[in-house]
Amino acid sequence: MTHASHSLTLADIARHLGVPLSGNAQTPIRGLATLKDAEPDQIAFLTNRAYLKDLATTRAGAVLLHPEHSKTCPVPRLELDNPYLGYARLSQLFDPLPARDRTGIHPAAVVADDATLGEGTCVAANAVIESGAVLGERVVVGPGSVVGADSQLGEGTRLHANVTVCHGVVIGKRAILHSGCVIGGDGFGFAHDGGAWHKIAQLGGVVLGDDVEVGSCSSIDRGALGDTLIGSDVKIDSQVQIAHNVQIGDHSALAGCVGIAGSTRVGKHCMLGGGVGLSGHLTLCDGVQVTGMSLVTNSIHASGVYSSGTGAMENHQWRKNAVRFKQLDDIAKRLARLEKHRD
Amino acid sequence: MTHASHSLTLADIARHLGVPLSGNAQTPIRGLATLKDAEPDQIAFLTNRAYLKDLATTRAGAVLLHPEHSKTCPVPRLELDNPYLGYARLSQLFDPLPARDRTGIHPAAVVADDATLGEGTCVAANAVIESGAVLGERVVVGPGSVVGADSQLGEGTRLHANVTVCHGVVIGKRAILHSGCVIGGDGFGFAHDGGAWHKIAQLGGVVLGDDVEVGSCSSIDRGALGDTLIGSDVKIDSQVQIAHNVQIGDHSALAGCVGIAGSTRVGKHCMLGGGVGLSGHLTLCDGVQVTGMSLVTNSIHASGVYSSGTGAMENHQWRKNAVRFKQLDDIAKRLARLEKHRD
Amino acid sequence: MTHASHSLTLADIARHLGVPLSGNAQTPIRGLATLKDAEPDQIAFLTNRAYLKDLATTRAGAVLLHPEHSKTCPVPRLELDNPYLGYARLSQLFDPLPARDRTGIHPAAVVADDATLGEGTCVAANAVIESGAVLGERVVVGPGSVVGADSQLGEGTRLHANVTVCHGVVIGKRAILHSGCVIGGDGFGFAHDGGAWHKIAQLGGVVLGDDVEVGSCSSIDRGALGDTLIGSDVKIDSQVQIAHNVQIGDHSALAGCVGIAGSTRVGKHCMLGGGVGLSGHLTLCDGVQVTGMSLVTNSIHASGVYSSGTGAMENHQWRKNAVRFKQLDDIAKRLARLEKHRD
Repeated sequence: MTHASHSLTLADIARHLGVPLSGNAQTPIRGLATLKDAEPDQIAFLTNRAYLKDLATTRAGAVLLHPEHSKTCPVPRLELDNPYLGYARLSQLFDPLPARDRTGIHPAAVVADDATLGEGTCVAANAVIESGAVLGERVVVGPGSVVGADSQLGEGTRLHANVTVCHGVVIGKRAILHSGCVIGGDGFGFAHDGGAWHKIAQLGGVVLGDDVEVGSCSSIDRGALGDTLIGSDVKIDSQVQIAHNVQIGDHSALAGCVGIAGSTRVGKHCMLGGGVGLSGHLTLCDGVQVTGMSLVTNSIHASGVYSSGTGAMENHQWRKNAVRFKQLDDIAKRLARLEKHRD
Repeated sequence: MTHASHSLTLADIARHLGVPLSGNAQTPIRGLATLKDAEPDQIAFLTNRAYLKDLATTRAGAVLLHPEHSKTCPVPRLELDNPYLGYARLSQLFDPLPARDRTGIHPAAVVADDATLGEGTCVAANAVIESGAVLGERVVVGPGSVVGADSQLGEGTRLHANVTVCHGVVIGKRAILHSGCVIGGDGFGFAHDGGAWHKIAQLGGVVLGDDVEVGSCSSIDRGALGDTLIGSDVKIDSQVQIAHNVQIGDHSALAGCVGIAGSTRVGKHCMLGGGVGLSGHLTLCDGVQVTGMSLVTNSIHASGVYSSGTGAMENHQWRKNAVRFKQLDDIAKRLARLEKHRD
Repeated sequence: MTHASHSLTLADIARHLGVPLSGNAQTPIRGLATLKDAEPDQIAFLTNRAYLKDLATTRAGAVLLHPEHSKTCPVPRLELDNPYLGYARLSQLFDPLPARDRTGIHPAAVVADDATLGEGTCVAANAVIESGAVLGERVVVGPGSVVGADSQLGEGTRLHANVTVCHGVVIGKRAILHSGCVIGGDGFGFAHDGGAWHKIAQLGGVVLGDDVEVGSCSSIDRGALGDTLIGSDVKIDSQVQIAHNVQIGDHSALAGCVGIAGSTRVGKHCMLGGGVGLSGHLTLCDGVQVTGMSLVTNSIHASGVYSSGTGAMENHQWRKNAVRFKQLDDIAKRLARLEKHRD
């Protein structure tokens, strides 16, 4: 369901994007939709040539597109060099969440006497704010969420429902933490005495920069001594694990199910595909992309795209090839022997 | 511990399954167990030939089995063409959960004034039901769970403890959502302006059909524009991530740790093994099975079993083969050259 | 941030470790740090030769190290055969958590009338203790956590915030359960009738031994009939899934994102790297190590290190090799033909 929290005109939309308008300024606009599904009171967008075929027949009230496609657009258009960015900006206008926020502290929230709450901050039912926590202005804490002792949340940060921020965690401005995520659980550190494990107390914290987003059910563990550090504008999807003392550079994006082992440093503007695993104590330089489900066990010192693994195939054929993989070193040696024999 | 919530007789069991009884109708039955462990007041079952050896010595009060194994059964038997299905049906009789449910709203639950609750629905301590939510008859909301604004839960649906259903989510009848799962967190959508990320508000919802089960700590993200769609009778294990605008056909089953990227469509009666990853924007037709930890990066248009990866081997040998994998293209070219030379 | 909950002297530290002291006994010590970062009121440690270069210039108040490195240490030293173990023991001294615990039951906690709470046990705000639960002495239940009906928590066990322990779960002494983890959700069991799935009620429980730790957002599912069994001193990282009726032997350690399918048995002193997957119904003997992101589909009967998969490489090269993987069986056959031809 696409929510229509309020109605705008086409002129409002064009003004918000800062672009000239080709159609009727008074057309009411109630939301966004794909080229195919859009009704005359919705804005559509063309950001992928695969959907060019839908442009000719769209019924949208207007279409966000690159100027190169204007001629084939049968309805009013909003021309942008980066129409996908325009779509992102418009999507914010139609987000029903901000309008829903209540103000103030729900009577069933539990807020420690010595916690500090900024102006406009709201704490939902059954949320718990522990001793010494400092929440900036316009922070939103969802129902069932917990903010641990001495943690700090920057202004405009939003915790959805059932989020856990452990003690001593520092989160910047405008962060969005989705339900079920945990920031600041203990890192996985134990010393072995030859027979049993001895816990290493995880005395560091977690520091998140500004504009960080963390997906549902993701974990960012606290540092063993120093802090786990997540840069600004880092975007983290659902089901991600970030171990103790990892560092992630600004503007990097981690897709779902990524796992990063302890003390690894990821540069700025990196992109890790879904299910990627990074071993511990590695360094990935700026601008590294790793494709889905690859395992990285060595540091990477040049920007670029990296991969591991094998593609899916029909199981019967795969079984034969997987058996041969176990003979691969032998195959290579036999080939070398044949080559020598030939010469 | 196998719970014995109440005692039944062997006759009750046979009547429940609709099969004739070969033993003493009055034998009291207090639960289920394996052939090996069953006591005389427990029912056992034979569903896997690997356990035929345990049949001869079982002490069970009766055994569920296929007629072909009746002759070798030393105790009373309950003959079924699909004894595993019979076991499933009996297991329900001994589930202690339904008997435990209280009725009504716990005083420490927080239910919005304009939420609608069906007859027989119960909401546990510290659960939160937000504004506009609609819960059908006999819905159970566990302690600490949150039902977001305007979401709908069909009759007989059960949320275990600490479940999060975000706003605008529609869930069918008889769903079972396990603890820690999150339905309707934001999908992972951002536009890049060349330097920084801009969030795309996730304006779609999530729609689950009837009889869906979602395991603990799993995430099903809400759609960017349209909805993420989970068909009826879809079974989802723990630690699974389903990204925005994914569609899963009826009767499909996803094992633990599966990750599915955005907008991918999985057909009906598909089965994804543990840890399987599907890239975004793919289509898997009906009846596709993917074995554990395989990565699928292309659409699949024929039903069957698919795999990727390599099997585990001793690390010393594996290292040699993994090095050779990096030379594989070279090996293939050298082989072709030798073949040419031979001709 | 490294917390300094209280100040000790160097003499206190030496006494705690049971080692002689080489420096000024009255030196105040407020915490731990790396060789590089340590100030004169902090203890550092040398546990990895890679950091020997930092020893010469450390400003630490004292250094924990092996006697072989004493000569090159410019500051007071604490000599131990296993300095990493010494670090673990000292880290406990500086953990601020124990000092923060309140005593007793928070007024916003909900504790069933027939639950049993041991002496010194504390239950935080918005936690829920259900009917029949038995909590030993000095148990700590964090905010928003739920302890299900008839579950048992051994003395000294700590549940962080938003933990879920389902009904009928037995947890030993001194367990640490991190936020968002779920112990005792249903295993993934369904029988198929040819068209639809029928749920198998999960009638078993989960039993955890003593000194078990479970990371944030991890799932340990309850057994179908018998119990899922986690031995003593088993350490489980974040984002791990353990399916129904799995058994893990004492002292084993599972890194982040591990997934173990149903009924698999892992021996004692095993170590599973991050993202490892084990198929169902396998047996791994004692002392097995599996490297990160390996898939194990067969039982392992000899201790040692095991691996699968391929290492990451530059994507352009990887694509060529991955294509060749699909031809591997053919390559092997063609090679054999050439060898035959040569003879």
